[in-house]
Amino acid sequence: MGLDRVGIIGLGLIGGSIGLDLQAKGFEVCGLVNREKTATRAKERGLAQLVSTDPTIISDCSIVILALPLKQLIEPTEQLINALPLKAVITDVGSVKKPVLNKWRGLHPKFVASHPMSGTIKTGVEAGQRGLFKNKPWVATPDPTTDQEALNVIKNLAISLGSNWITTDADTHDQSVALISHLPVFISASLLKTVNKEKNNEVSVLAKTIASSGFEDTTRVGGGNPSLGVAMAMYNSSSILETLTSYRSSIDKFEQMIRNKQWKQLQKELEKTQQDRPDYL
Amino acid sequence: MGLDRVGIIGLGLIGGSIGLDLQAKGFEVCGLVNREKTATRAKERGLAQLVSTDPTIISDCSIVILALPLKQLIEPTEQLINALPLKAVITDVGSVKKPVLNKWRGLHPKFVASHPMSGTIKTGVEAGQRGLFKNKPWVATPDPTTDQEALNVIKNLAISLGSNWITTDADTHDQSVALISHLPVFISASLLKTVNKEKNNEVSVLAKTIASSGFEDTTRVGGGNPSLGVAMAMYNSSSILETLTSYRSSIDKFEQMIRNKQWKQLQKELEKTQQDRPDYL
Repeated sequence: MGLDRVGIIGLGLIGGSIGLDLQAKGFEVCGLVNREKTATRAKERGLAQLVSTDPTIISDCSIVILALPLKQLIEPTEQLINALPLKAVITDVGSVKKPVLNKWRGLHPKFVASHPMSGTIKTGVEAGQRGLFKNKPWVATPDPTTDQEALNVIKNLAISLGSNWITTDADTHDQSVALISHLPVFISASLLKTVNKEKNNEVSVLAKTIASSGFEDTTRVGGGNPSLGVAMAMYNSSSILETLTSYRSSIDKFEQMIRNKQWKQLQKELEKTQQDRPDYL
Repeated sequence: MGLDRVGIIGLGLIGGSIGLDLQAKGFEVCGLVNREKTATRAKERGLAQLVSTDPTIISDCSIVILALPLKQLIEPTEQLINALPLKAVITDVGSVKKPVLNKWRGLHPKFVASHPMSGTIKTGVEAGQRGLFKNKPWVATPDPTTDQEALNVIKNLAISLGSNWITTDADTHDQSVALISHLPVFISASLLKTVNKEKNNEVSVLAKTIASSGFEDTTRVGGGNPSLGVAMAMYNSSSILETLTSYRSSIDKFEQMIRNKQWKQLQKELEKTQQDRPDYL
């Protein structure tokens, strides 16, 4: 078993992109997918040297990356668990870490919970691309039971893909992504819902005609993958609900300023948001 | 007085961009600005053939474009009003039309209320650029008192800049821009405010580190020009307040679905927003 044979389960945007970059770095990559059709296309695209629907394809790998949707990570099948080599280091790429860690902590001795913060609107076997992780955060959320050597293996893997390695605890991670990634989905979807329910037909038609880049930007994440939005909501409910409560009080404050014609205060607030935004870019 | 001499009052993003494109189309452009320093820079940048702080610069123009901030359009100075040639066709570029039209209807017989739907984050004399209006809507909001010939002059001007000409009434315009342009500013600023008021320091620091393109997109318009946000709120208050009420009920519905674990309904709602978004692009 060489250190440089990496298994990737799932060759969608994240799995496929990891496969492309790792091969360019000299790793041997074995891809495990669900369907023959996906396997064929993944081979054509060169997402891995070997691609199969047969779980034994990953049995010689020293690292296995579970590049699967959240639901499959949190409710893994027996078949998936049994396919993982006991001596391999395992990591996932799920965008919520506490329920993943809670599930996998007892399932595999070398499991490391992690989350590369890269994404595009694309999904599926066509989505994988080179350089997706370059200069992007890759967050790991070890707990006291996490194997330190395994953690180091994933750290080196992430760094070899050009990511910025960050470790934190799963709670802090899940609250942070609720704020900067999950809350924006529901804010943005609510804007689309609001515009769509406009009852004045002339207003509605004109809105569709004149909407420009500002509307496009603000609605991008709300018009994204519905299943991903549902998975965030299912597995990070309490943090998202907290941020929604806080968000509503922010909206209320802006509304009050407008209703009460507090223009100086509104100017100050908007100056503050303008000043603060670059901290997040 | 030739038909091809155009005066532009204000040479910021919109005025400067109009100046650059009109000159390329063979028009003679005269720019009127407030400060000597701006005049010097506008000349250096070639935003108009003639630039001055002296209002008589526009006295021979057959078209005058008021490329000024909303406040100056809605509360115009005597000096501005007196500078406008009586025989010229006048238009503005304000993003709220009802108060502009209400003010100017009685001030000049050939006033046409209009609004080119183009913008970038840039402002000031450095902002003007070629091709800003190409394939973008240019909305006019005539009322029964609007001079039809004057309306045609502005229509031809907008079309010569590559814009898509649209006419509607001022109320419909103001309600539509409230939905697709003004509401997004306050939604987006509220997200920044929510993230900024996070009290858990570890969560706050991690959020700043891992925020990525989704957060960048969703906060873009909320981190824009504060004075423009205040002007929207001041002059389009009632439409914005209506959209905020409707928006809050959308947010409430998403919150209820998450709180009540209505995942199938949430999936349907997010499928709908995903399907509907392309109508606005």
